[in-house]
Amino acid sequence: MDTPLAEPVAAALINAVNRGDTGYALAGRLPEAFAGFAARQYGWHPDASAARLVPDVMSGIVEVLQIISEPGDRVVVNTPGYPPFFYWLERIGRRVVQSPLAVGPDGHRLDVDRLERDFAAGARVYLLCNPHNPTGLVLTRDELTRVAELADRYHVRVVVDEILAPLTYPGARHVPFPSLDSPAAARSIALVSASKAWNIAGLKAALAVPGPAAHADVAAIHEEVSEGAGLLGVLAAEAAFTHGDPWLRRLITALDGNRRLLAAQLADHLPGVGHHPPRAGYVAWLDCRALGWGDDPAQVFLRQGKVGLSSGLRFGPEGRGFVRLNFATAPERLTEAVTRMAAARAQADERPA
Amino acid sequence: MDTPLAEPVAAALINAVNRGDTGYALAGRLPEAFAGFAARQYGWHPDASAARLVPDVMSGIVEVLQIISEPGDRVVVNTPGYPPFFYWLERIGRRVVQSPLAVGPDGHRLDVDRLERDFAAGARVYLLCNPHNPTGLVLTRDELTRVAELADRYHVRVVVDEILAPLTYPGARHVPFPSLDSPAAARSIALVSASKAWNIAGLKAALAVPGPAAHADVAAIHEEVSEGAGLLGVLAAEAAFTHGDPWLRRLITALDGNRRLLAAQLADHLPGVGHHPPRAGYVAWLDCRALGWGDDPAQVFLRQGKVGLSSGLRFGPEGRGFVRLNFATAPERLTEAVTRMAAARAQADERPA
Ligand SMILES: Cc1ncc(COP(=O)(O)O)c(C=O)c1O
Ligand SMILES: Cc1ncc(COP(=O)(O)O)c(C=O)c1O
Repeated sequence: MDTPLAEPVAAALINAVNRGDTGYALAGRLPEAFAGFAARQYGWHPDASAARLVPDVMSGIVEVLQIISEPGDRVVVNTPGYPPFFYWLERIGRRVVQSPLAVGPDGHRLDVDRLERDFAAGARVYLLCNPHNPTGLVLTRDELTRVAELADRYHVRVVVDEILAPLTYPGARHVPFPSLDSPAAARSIALVSASKAWNIAGLKAALAVPGPAAHADVAAIHEEVSEGAGLLGVLAAEAAFTHGDPWLRRLITALDGNRRLLAAQLADHLPGVGHHPPRAGYVAWLDCRALGWGDDPAQVFLRQGKVGLSSGLRFGPEGRGFVRLNFATAPERLTEAVTRMAAARAQADERPA
Repeated sequence: MDTPLAEPVAAALINAVNRGDTGYALAGRLPEAFAGFAARQYGWHPDASAARLVPDVMSGIVEVLQIISEPGDRVVVNTPGYPPFFYWLERIGRRVVQSPLAVGPDGHRLDVDRLERDFAAGARVYLLCNPHNPTGLVLTRDELTRVAELADRYHVRVVVDEILAPLTYPGARHVPFPSLDSPAAARSIALVSASKAWNIAGLKAALAVPGPAAHADVAAIHEEVSEGAGLLGVLAAEAAFTHGDPWLRRLITALDGNRRLLAAQLADHLPGVGHHPPRAGYVAWLDCRALGWGDDPAQVFLRQGKVGLSSGLRFGPEGRGFVRLNFATAPERLTEAVTRMAAARAQADERPA
C-alpha cells in the first residue's frame, strides 16, 4: 500500500530503535493484543496462550502443514489462488488439489459441490484463504459452516489464511473459522497477521492461532521457527492490534473510496472488463477475456499502456485472461492507471497486439 | 548484546519508519554494502551481483544445504557447535557428522586429522563455522588452506558461517573462506550478516555469498525465500556495512576490555575453571569439569548463584561440563556475574550440590 504508517505503529518502532531493542524476537504481548482485536472486531475470543509466533503467514502455513500432514498428502486450494501457495506446497512435497471457485453473475463464490468432490477424493487438508486473494471474496457464516460440515464428514483438517480479515469492507463480515461451533473448526488453525492491514509485511511477524482442539499441533511449532520472526514486526503488530483500530477505520474508508472509484471508472472506460468489487482487501481481479488478448493481458497493458498489473497466470489456470490490480494508492494514480488501460485498449483495437 | 544501536543504523531505521518503508524486502544495495565492507576489512572482493538475500544466517544455511545436498547426505559439523545447527540439519534430513575440535594447552583448535577421517568416510558438505561459536576460534589462513585441500581431495562442499567475522579481535585475522585460491573455496558459499556485530538479529537479513564457482547454486535460492527477509534488516545492515566501521571499532575495543576483565576475574576467583579468551565474538566457553559438578554446571550456577549461563550440553557431547557465558554487557554486570559464580562455587564446596 502507498500509505504512511499508523501513528501507534510508527511510535512503537521508533521507541524500539531508540531503546536498541533489536535482538531476537519473542511473542511478548502480541498474542494478547491479537486476542483483544479479535474480540472487538469479530466477537472471537481465541486462547492467546495457545498462539505461536511465526515469521509470516506463508511460513506459518508451511510449518503447520508440516505438522499436520505428510509428504504426498493432498492439500485443497481454491483457484484462482495466492501464487506462493503453489510454490511452497510443492516444495514441501504436498500435492495441491486445485478446487476452482464458481463464477456467477455476482462474481466468484465458493463451489461447495466441487469442494465436496475434492474432499471426497482423499484430501488431508483444506488450505482456505478467507478473505480470499485475489477475488476479495469473504465467505459467509453459512458457507463456512458448510465447509466445516464437509471437513468433518471427510476428515479434512482446515488451515485458514485470515491475513486479509482486518481489511473487510462494510457490507461483509469476517467470521474467523476457528470460532465456529464444530469439530472441524475446533481442530482448525488460523494464520493471522497485522502485516497487510497496517502495511508492515516487511517486518516479519504473524501468529498461528489454533481452535480449541488444535493446541497441541500449534504447540509443536518449534521455538527455532518462532525465532525466525522479526522483533520489530512483533512490536509493530502488537501496537497495531492494540491501538490501531481508528487508523484501520480511516484506511478502510479511504480504500473503500478507491474501490468505488475503480468500479465507476472501469464501467465508464473499460466496459469490456469484468469486475466485481472485492469485499475485502485492496486488489481487484479483472476479467479481461472479452478483450481477446489471450492468456496474459497483463503483458499487453504493460506494453501498450505502461501499467503494471499482476498476471492472472500466476494464480493458476483460472487466472487465464485475468489481471490483478492493486488499488491501495492515491486516487489520482488509480485514475491514471485506468486511463492508461483504456488507452492501451483503444490502441490494441486499432492495431491488434 | 547490551548496547545502543550504532548511530547510522538507528538513523536508517528511523528514516524507513518515517517514510513508511515497511513492505516486502528486496536486497537493494545490501550486497554492494557488504562487498565494500569485505574489501576494507578482509581484502576480499566478492561479486555483489551473485549474492542473494536470505532472512537470516541459519535459514540461509538450510536453504543452501537443500540446494547442494540431498536428504540422507552427511554434513560435517565441528563440536562443540552452535545448537540450532543440530535441530535444522536433522529437520531437513541431513545426517550430522560430529567432528570434535581438538583441545590443547592453548584451547581449542581444528583437528585436521579428524576432519580428514570424517571427510573420507563420505561427507557431502562441511558446515564450517568460522569464527567459531562457542569457542571463539578463528582459523588461520594455513588451516583454511588445509581445509580447502581436504575438501578438494574428498569432494566435499564447504558452507561457511561467517556471521561472527566482524567481531574478530586484534591479534587474530579473519580470512573469508571463498576468498582462498582453491577449487573448494571457489565452490564454497559463505553466509554473512550484520546481525551479530551490530546487534540487529531480530531484524532478519543475511546474505548468501558464493565463491566464483558457486554462483548457480546461490542463484537457485528462490525469490520466495528472499522475500522472507525483513526490509528493516536489509536497511539496517546496509547502513552498518557502509557507515558502521567506526562504531564497530569502538564496540570491539569495549568488548576486548570485557574479554580481558573476564579472563582476569576468572583467574582470580575461579581458578578451577578452564578458559581461553575467544579470538572473536562475545561469548566465553568455560570448562567447568574440574569443579566436579557433572554434565551441566549451568544448572548449579543458576541454582546456587542466580547466574544465567548457556548449558554446554546444547552444543553437543563435547559440551559436557562446560558453560557458555555472554560477556557483551556492562563491566559491572560481568564482575557481578563472576562474583556470584565464585560464591556458588564456595557454597557448593561446603554442601555438595
Ligand atoms: C492471502 C495472503 N496470504 C498470505 C500472504 C503473505 O503474507 P506473509 O507476508 O505474512 O507471508 C498474502 C500477502 O499478500 C496474502 O494476500
Ligand atoms: C555462529 C552463528 N551462526 C548463526 C547464528 C544465527 O544467526 P541468524 O540469527 O542470522 O540465523 C548465530 C547467532 O548467534 C551464530 O552465533
